Amino acid sequence: MLKRNEETFIACDAEYGDAEVVIFGAPFDSTTSFRPGARFGPKAMRSESFGIETYSPYLDKDMTDYSFFDSGDLELSFGRVESALNDIEERVRTILAAGKIPFMFGGEHLVTLPAVRAVHNKYSDVHIIHFDAHADLRDDYLGAKLSHASVMRRCWEIVGDNRIYQFGIRSGDREEFEWGKERVETHKFSFDGLDGVVERLKGKNVYFTLDLDVLDPSEFSGTGTPEAGGVRFNELREAVKLIFENVNIVGLDAVELSPHYDVSGVSTAAACKIVREMLLSMMK
Amino acid sequence: MLKRNEETFIACDAEYGDAEVVIFGAPFDSTTSFRPGARFGPKAMRSESFGIETYSPYLDKDMTDYSFFDSGDLELSFGRVESALNDIEERVRTILAAGKIPFMFGGEHLVTLPAVRAVHNKYSDVHIIHFDAHADLRDDYLGAKLSHASVMRRCWEIVGDNRIYQFGIRSGDREEFEWGKERVETHKFSFDGLDGVVERLKGKNVYFTLDLDVLDPSEFSGTGTPEAGGVRFNELREAVKLIFENVNIVGLDAVELSPHYDVSGVSTAAACKIVREMLLSMMK
Amino acid sequence: MLKRNEETFIACDAEYGDAEVVIFGAPFDSTTSFRPGARFGPKAMRSESFGIETYSPYLDKDMTDYSFFDSGDLELSFGRVESALNDIEERVRTILAAGKIPFMFGGEHLVTLPAVRAVHNKYSDVHIIHFDAHADLRDDYLGAKLSHASVMRRCWEIVGDNRIYQFGIRSGDREEFEWGKERVETHKFSFDGLDGVVERLKGKNVYFTLDLDVLDPSEFSGTGTPEAGGVRFNELREAVKLIFENVNIVGLDAVELSPHYDVSGVSTAAACKIVREMLLSMMK
Amino acid sequence: MLKRNEETFIACDAEYGDAEVVIFGAPFDSTTSFRPGARFGPKAMRSESFGIETYSPYLDKDMTDYSFFDSGDLELSFGRVESALNDIEERVRTILAAGKIPFMFGGEHLVTLPAVRAVHNKYSDVHIIHFDAHADLRDDYLGAKLSHASVMRRCWEIVGDNRIYQFGIRSGDREEFEWGKERVETHKFSFDGLDGVVERLKGKNVYFTLDLDVLDPSEFSGTGTPEAGGVRFNELREAVKLIFENVNIVGLDAVELSPHYDVSGVSTAAACKIVREMLLSMMK
Amino acid sequence: MLKRNEETFIACDAEYGDAEVVIFGAPFDSTTSFRPGARFGPKAMRSESFGIETYSPYLDKDMTDYSFFDSGDLELSFGRVESALNDIEERVRTILAAGKIPFMFGGEHLVTLPAVRAVHNKYSDVHIIHFDAHADLRDDYLGAKLSHASVMRRCWEIVGDNRIYQFGIRSGDREEFEWGKERVETHKFSFDGLDGVVERLKGKNVYFTLDLDVLDPSEFSGTGTPEAGGVRFNELREAVKLIFENVNIVGLDAVELSPHYDVSGVSTAAACKIVREMLLSMMK
Amino acid sequence: MLKRNEETFIACDAEYGDAEVVIFGAPFDSTTSFRPGARFGPKAMRSESFGIETYSPYLDKDMTDYSFFDSGDLELSFGRVESALNDIEERVRTILAAGKIPFMFGGEHLVTLPAVRAVHNKYSDVHIIHFDAHADLRDDYLGAKLSHASVMRRCWEIVGDNRIYQFGIRSGDREEFEWGKERVETHKFSFDGLDGVVERLKGKNVYFTLDLDVLDPSEFSGTGTPEAGGVRFNELREAVKLIFENVNIVGLDAVELSPHYDVSGVSTAAACKIVREMLLSMMK
Repeated sequence: MLKRNEETFIACDAEYGDAEVVIFGAPFDSTTSFRPGARFGPKAMRSESFGIETYSPYLDKDMTDYSFFDSGDLELSFGRVESALNDIEERVRTILAAGKIPFMFGGEHLVTLPAVRAVHNKYSDVHIIHFDAHADLRDDYLGAKLSHASVMRRCWEIVGDNRIYQFGIRSGDREEFEWGKERVETHKFSFDGLDGVVERLKGKNVYFTLDLDVLDPSEFSGTGTPEAGGVRFNELREAVKLIFENVNIVGLDAVELSPHYDVSGVSTAAACKIVREMLLSMMK
Repeated sequence: MLKRNEETFIACDAEYGDAEVVIFGAPFDSTTSFRPGARFGPKAMRSESFGIETYSPYLDKDMTDYSFFDSGDLELSFGRVESALNDIEERVRTILAAGKIPFMFGGEHLVTLPAVRAVHNKYSDVHIIHFDAHADLRDDYLGAKLSHASVMRRCWEIVGDNRIYQFGIRSGDREEFEWGKERVETHKFSFDGLDGVVERLKGKNVYFTLDLDVLDPSEFSGTGTPEAGGVRFNELREAVKLIFENVNIVGLDAVELSPHYDVSGVSTAAACKIVREMLLSMMK
Repeated sequence: MLKRNEETFIACDAEYGDAEVVIFGAPFDSTTSFRPGARFGPKAMRSESFGIETYSPYLDKDMTDYSFFDSGDLELSFGRVESALNDIEERVRTILAAGKIPFMFGGEHLVTLPAVRAVHNKYSDVHIIHFDAHADLRDDYLGAKLSHASVMRRCWEIVGDNRIYQFGIRSGDREEFEWGKERVETHKFSFDGLDGVVERLKGKNVYFTLDLDVLDPSEFSGTGTPEAGGVRFNELREAVKLIFENVNIVGLDAVELSPHYDVSGVSTAAACKIVREMLLSMMK
Repeated sequence: MLKRNEETFIACDAEYGDAEVVIFGAPFDSTTSFRPGARFGPKAMRSESFGIETYSPYLDKDMTDYSFFDSGDLELSFGRVESALNDIEERVRTILAAGKIPFMFGGEHLVTLPAVRAVHNKYSDVHIIHFDAHADLRDDYLGAKLSHASVMRRCWEIVGDNRIYQFGIRSGDREEFEWGKERVETHKFSFDGLDGVVERLKGKNVYFTLDLDVLDPSEFSGTGTPEAGGVRFNELREAVKLIFENVNIVGLDAVELSPHYDVSGVSTAAACKIVREMLLSMMK
Repeated sequence: MLKRNEETFIACDAEYGDAEVVIFGAPFDSTTSFRPGARFGPKAMRSESFGIETYSPYLDKDMTDYSFFDSGDLELSFGRVESALNDIEERVRTILAAGKIPFMFGGEHLVTLPAVRAVHNKYSDVHIIHFDAHADLRDDYLGAKLSHASVMRRCWEIVGDNRIYQFGIRSGDREEFEWGKERVETHKFSFDGLDGVVERLKGKNVYFTLDLDVLDPSEFSGTGTPEAGGVRFNELREAVKLIFENVNIVGLDAVELSPHYDVSGVSTAAACKIVREMLLSMMK
Repeated sequence: MLKRNEETFIACDAEYGDAEVVIFGAPFDSTTSFRPGARFGPKAMRSESFGIETYSPYLDKDMTDYSFFDSGDLELSFGRVESALNDIEERVRTILAAGKIPFMFGGEHLVTLPAVRAVHNKYSDVHIIHFDAHADLRDDYLGAKLSHASVMRRCWEIVGDNRIYQFGIRSGDREEFEWGKERVETHKFSFDGLDGVVERLKGKNVYFTLDLDVLDPSEFSGTGTPEAGGVRFNELREAVKLIFENVNIVGLDAVELSPHYDVSGVSTAAACKIVREMLLSMMK
């Protein structure tokens, strides 16, 4: 008897019960103000993941030795932001309730907000490590409180002062940098200072949010708002390894891949590869 | 003394006081469920309009003999649908209050709703002629009442039974076709029946909404949801001429150009050309 | 409990036991000599099928009223032609053995050969209706007997004289047209003569193979070898309806969509739409 | 001993002495005002010609039965218009002096001027048949007398009144249409009236200039200034056949293919196919 | 009363009288020999500038604190090189006469020549700092003295020996490198030596010409002649800061962005960002 | 008398008798499993080579001082792997028999196998230096022994243990890395260790195979399987110089350029430039 067609991120086809990490997609980009398309990110990552290997020569680990599960994309209502966010939060709660680690593929960065809501509900002491080109600390964007550009501000309202650590930030308006000074720990331009942060967070519960546009646009053009002067893939890979091997990741995401701006496929392939490294670095 | 850079649709640089028609852009596509990008439509039309001539050999009229004005694009808040629609409605009211005809460049089709609100406020007897590949008569789309897929349903709530005339419709779900039967006049697949409708509406107030995807995708690929089997450009051009020379156009729009899917520029050029024909056909 | 991600052609998610038609993909284009990429066809059709509706206003039928099943893509070995063809033949045999109709998404046209082998094995009296821009009647192509350019020649070796009916053919070398004269019924350039053929094949077993490049490149650019001067989508749609409502379809395919040449998505959308019409036309 | 790499339009590899028609490329687009790129036309046509067959099922003739020669592209100096035109004129004179028919691949339409100069030098009674979307009858364009937009005006200065026959014209400014009325025979929009013109020119010397943008942009997007509402490929093919079988072609060109706007390759393939039909229709 | 649509580079909408820097576009690429398209540069930079912020976290300055003015694009006649260059020179003279700093967006590199002519007319002691991948020191290119490939040679004829400082040069023919040895100061491959040059030019009048292809093609693909092995964005940004904070910039340009080769938009975004840094670095 | 059109890699138009290096293209990609298109590599390199200079400022050498010959592309039968490989081997043998150095442009990496067969036939002591992102050491790929993914395994069967030196490798399955440990010398991720290898191979016969995907995808996106984290162009250029000035190159190739994934042309330009450096570095 033939089986109905299944499609998962490469090697994420474990039995649900066995899975340590559960992937899902949040194909939402309704508040994107400049160039939309992050909604197509999860599908592209799933589909192009078959161009990478399951084995990492960097970590000498193979995905086939672990149990990952891909639960597919949510169907989110465009133009109804709150409703979409609620659907995301519910999925994250479900995964957490099953004792598994939720790994969300965005979508625009706003999708991180409901994930943090759900994670904070379970782990009230959670810290957030945030890689991004943009500070995302605005109070609102053109009047919208729920916006990709204010997502970390909203997260700060949940987790409070000095629990958000930003790296690679190289764009924002003057006010958000000003506002952030006393409330979040912003490391501009690079990963300088990451060692110290990891040292301090050793063994603690951390939600990790990766806005892929932290990468230099030369290595990652496939995003809505490319910002010249970013970090290199190998720097990102090593930063991920450092974090994941030292803190306790309780939830994570990779957002803002917009495949329409990735004509060559290079960005999608890089996204898949860093996802593989994230998955493997978490496994002991 | 040098002037600050102005950019208008070709030959739409009259003095505001003189203008008979006032163009504006509504770069909004927040409820687009499939492929976004209609937000880029108005800018693309303005920019590429310099590839067409101001003279129409079809009508033997020249835009430079009339007074058109391009008031630019609204800045609309993504993710806040009602707020964006209000901004559009206000712009249309302003233009109508000045005794001019508003011509809106979309954006997704939902932007027609606030335009119809404003027009109906001034002309309570208005009829709507609607060219489109899609019926857009759903009551809601994934729970959203304000959606491109339900825009004509919302318009019907304003203008009432038997005041909407649809042509070229070749896609929809079974329910919307069913629902529409008693309430709107749907001419499927082509412009068959347009003669009769124009006859009946002769001299009456009409809002004309052109979803450019009524065109066959071979002639107009630059749209979010291409539907094979559409009408040809010359058919559209003649239909526009027939309507505009016989009814009293009190407001109009051209929506759903999504230039990212128009790599060759052919769709944008066609959109500009039909806009020229619309502008000139209205002029006596 | 969350489900592993499934992905099917729209509304092809019946239980296998109930399914009347079983879809599968044959992502193979190893013998394509000019521009490869048909291997990406099945995935693209599946993914973009969500841009069309399940309801056909042409047929007034809805896919959700019937039972279709999508069994996914075969994993075929590139560079090993015979091995790949065997895998395809086996899949078709499996579906036929279950009393269901196999519907294959190509892939290059050579994939039709193993499907015809399997169908002929069950229905030795089968006729073939073949829509294409190219005759595909060469004895070999650069020495290769198993080639997209000789697939109908190979099929003729199976079904014999006067059992293949070609329509829309507008390209080939002089020899293949010459050779075909006595052996296959070739209708050049259009669907002229289809009425008579359908009349003669009424109620008989027919394998239908649709090389999508029979469509004019203006409506279907997404193919390896575009040939100007083809048929229009509406002509194809009506031809399909005529055939499917009169003969007994025992197997079918749609091949040669090469999505990399379909930057706008128009070709993929057209392919999905004609597949919907094929599926619905078969249902009584 | 290995040969240095040769590259010709398909089947245009005769010995020079035997050749009846000599092709060359004029990769020039220096005066193109809107979107450049016609300079890439000749190379693209040569390269993609291997996607078509040498045999025409429309004419039942095969290129391999005749002697065509491809002499390659001229190296033209951009920014020095007169110098470039002189180089073209010299190439055409060389070919004419050898008793052969020159077939030029453009480049922008201005390249027709030096070809007409050379042809008129040998055949002072020459008529011109001109297929185009644009009238090209301006006296100058932004002060430039030598411009793609004024090429037929310049040709008229050479051949005089009533010797230019235009078809398919659907764009221009009011003045050029006005000016042309007494001096050239302009058939707007289509090939209507071609029968009569061919009748009158039977057996006479004709230079044929094909601006490929006469085709509808749906079939030919690959050009700098697409104009909706053009002719279909099959109409063009039949018009060419009618002309070429009745008049005496003494020189010809195909211009304005701009392959960068032909992402799918459909336009280049259509250009190659109409070139084949032109070459074969000339042969008795 | 509605305003006619204005479009400027982001935050360059001061009153003309207040403006310290005046931007204009020179959309000219008529002598480009390889791949044209730099004519589209100024429009693209203006349009995409809204994807960057007005605040620079590198300089801790905000564009909204200063007065910049964008006077739009010149309308230049293609194919008439001298005429186009004169129009550019006149615009630069106008801006200089008003006591403001002209900032030109190219266009191909030849547009620098008339700007240098105008600047040298006012500041006869001007030095030129030139960032580029190409030496541009040829005496002529295919006979053309006015060519992108000979622009610095022409500038040398104006400013004389030892007043041109080149950096990042990694392409040219042997002769131009040879010729330049005694006459211009060429720093190959990188910014090595810039410190010393800036030291020597401290407080002096400098025209700065930035051919954006000095950037590595990985960070800046959107140009006609990409040359592997270039400088990184952050190196460029720091070099600009060093120069602009130490010398007296009396005129400047950024040329050779060709947006058609920038499918992802990354190059245009980088160009906008470096323009912001240039504008802000000049402000005390 | 006009010459038939010739097209060679820039400055590779020597007389055959004089040529020291003979280029040919192997446009084959039949076993490519992920994204095909390397078949278009040789043509693209030849055509775009005119965008680079013949002079290298890195080496201070000019191609016009040496004798290179471009013998064009083989016509290879797709879908018949062995037959295609035999045709390649024969071409390499011909070139070697004439006492010249064969330089093959791929095509997928499998084309290296027949080149190594031919070279090993003449130089039984040959070593192989292999730059690549992928190990290519699988025994088979989906059952195919002749596959791009197993090409170095097949080469190892010819040259034996410890004669293959790999650099830049950053992808593969666990088994191939394991297998290779005792048999080939794999330098992962970078060119670390190249000095020592070159030292050991000084003056010895070496076949050099360059899979261009060894470059970081930011500098070389135009390939089927991009792998983030690669080497930079300048590193590659210097590595090539080191090798070519010290060992005795007896054959070489540059493979896996897939121009369809190189929309900007940056990869093709980089490939041309490294080919120039390879050609010049070989010349004493």
